[in-house]
Amino acid sequence: MASTRPQPAFLFDLDGTLVDNVYQHVLAWREALEGEGIQLSVWRIHRRIGMSGGLLINALVRESGRQLSDEQVEHVQRLHREAYGRLSSGMRPLPGARELLEHLTNVHVPWAIATSGHLDNARPALDALGVAAAGAGGSASGGTRPMLTATVITRDQVERGKPDPDLFIAAAERINVPIDAAIVVGDSVWDLLAARRAGALGVGLMSGGYGQDELERAGAYRVYQDPADLLRHLDEVGVR
Amino acid sequence: MASTRPQPAFLFDLDGTLVDNVYQHVLAWREALEGEGIQLSVWRIHRRIGMSGGLLINALVRESGRQLSDEQVEHVQRLHREAYGRLSSGMRPLPGARELLEHLTNVHVPWAIATSGHLDNARPALDALGVAAAGAGGSASGGTRPMLTATVITRDQVERGKPDPDLFIAAAERINVPIDAAIVVGDSVWDLLAARRAGALGVGLMSGGYGQDELERAGAYRVYQDPADLLRHLDEVGVR
Repeated sequence: MASTRPQPAFLFDLDGTLVDNVYQHVLAWREALEGEGIQLSVWRIHRRIGMSGGLLINALVRESGRQLSDEQVEHVQRLHREAYGRLSSGMRPLPGARELLEHLTNVHVPWAIATSGHLDNARPALDALGVAAAGAGGSASGGTRPMLTATVITRDQVERGKPDPDLFIAAAERINVPIDAAIVVGDSVWDLLAARRAGALGVGLMSGGYGQDELERAGAYRVYQDPADLLRHLDEVGVR
Repeated sequence: MASTRPQPAFLFDLDGTLVDNVYQHVLAWREALEGEGIQLSVWRIHRRIGMSGGLLINALVRESGRQLSDEQVEHVQRLHREAYGRLSSGMRPLPGARELLEHLTNVHVPWAIATSGHLDNARPALDALGVAAAGAGGSASGGTRPMLTATVITRDQVERGKPDPDLFIAAAERINVPIDAAIVVGDSVWDLLAARRAGALGVGLMSGGYGQDELERAGAYRVYQDPADLLRHLDEVGVR
């Protein structure tokens, strides 16, 4: 029986899970919200990272007791893009991220990336990782490494972002695996909440700054430090 | 009996506890360590914040598997000061921080600040808070607010930094309260560890980015979101 059970598939979050860019996003959102006069403690912004941009702004604006027009929300998003571009120079993959994706590819375990960002925002992170989005065309080269081509689902391809499950459900469909055979790997409680709602198994990584307890309470079946740590323990999540 | 029991005293950490500057410190350390070729994931740096600078560098360098000479450590500290100065413009007190200190002053509850930083590094944060270190001379004005004068113990005044208890013990001595009647308020597990070792009660704040569980596990008797939240619940920690 066991030998006919399929390998699991992996659906990865991008920011903070494969690429080390959460803290840069945090300070970029802080700066962007200040641009509309919204002052929030930085840790409160950190706890919303991983939500899709629109939801994140709504949640933080509500927390501040203010209201923003659609134009002001767009302004905040533009300021965030600018600040993030400035703060994220020299952004790197997390330790083991590239090796993990290569290993899964080599052992024929299907995987995809599902990110809360729009494709334009995700591209610098994908470039840093050396991943080209299948069918998305014109990306930068991966430097000395060959690029891995992968299924990448971005915010623009689904109706609702995280913590709604749409991104992970779309990613599973695209790589043709049943969602209940998929393992969602993410660094934020929003990934794990979305995983639960999608009916997938959730695995947490501490590389976005959340503690182990918090990720477990949000439904993580296992928590690892970063992609390198997950790669060393793939047997624990059913990869033979 | 109860009416003769003294009020508690408060020993506050500064960065992340009274002032919203942890994430700026995190990215400044990242940039500084890169200056000596040390590449570490940002979340690992975040988890060391609150340790005194020298200990933080030692711990992170050890984690990276590298070794640094004394000159290289000094270079990292200089790069951190420069990057922090750039990233921390517009630094603000945490919500309720100033009001909390004013309230304690008004109701004659003794308090002091004990920070892992050296006085020069701490001064911008104290200025943002509107606090002048007693006897330290020449600080900037607090803008429109009158400055509060307070006992401030900095790294240069004790032999060992956090998580050793020296800073909090020295602060209690300076304001003439027994350490076991003192409440240490901090945002990091290093504050809470130092509080335990000093024999003081520890109270955690989430404003530095640690989750509630983690602060409780490190020994926090109570955990609040930020100084404003602590101010609303002072009765829970024995202030009448």
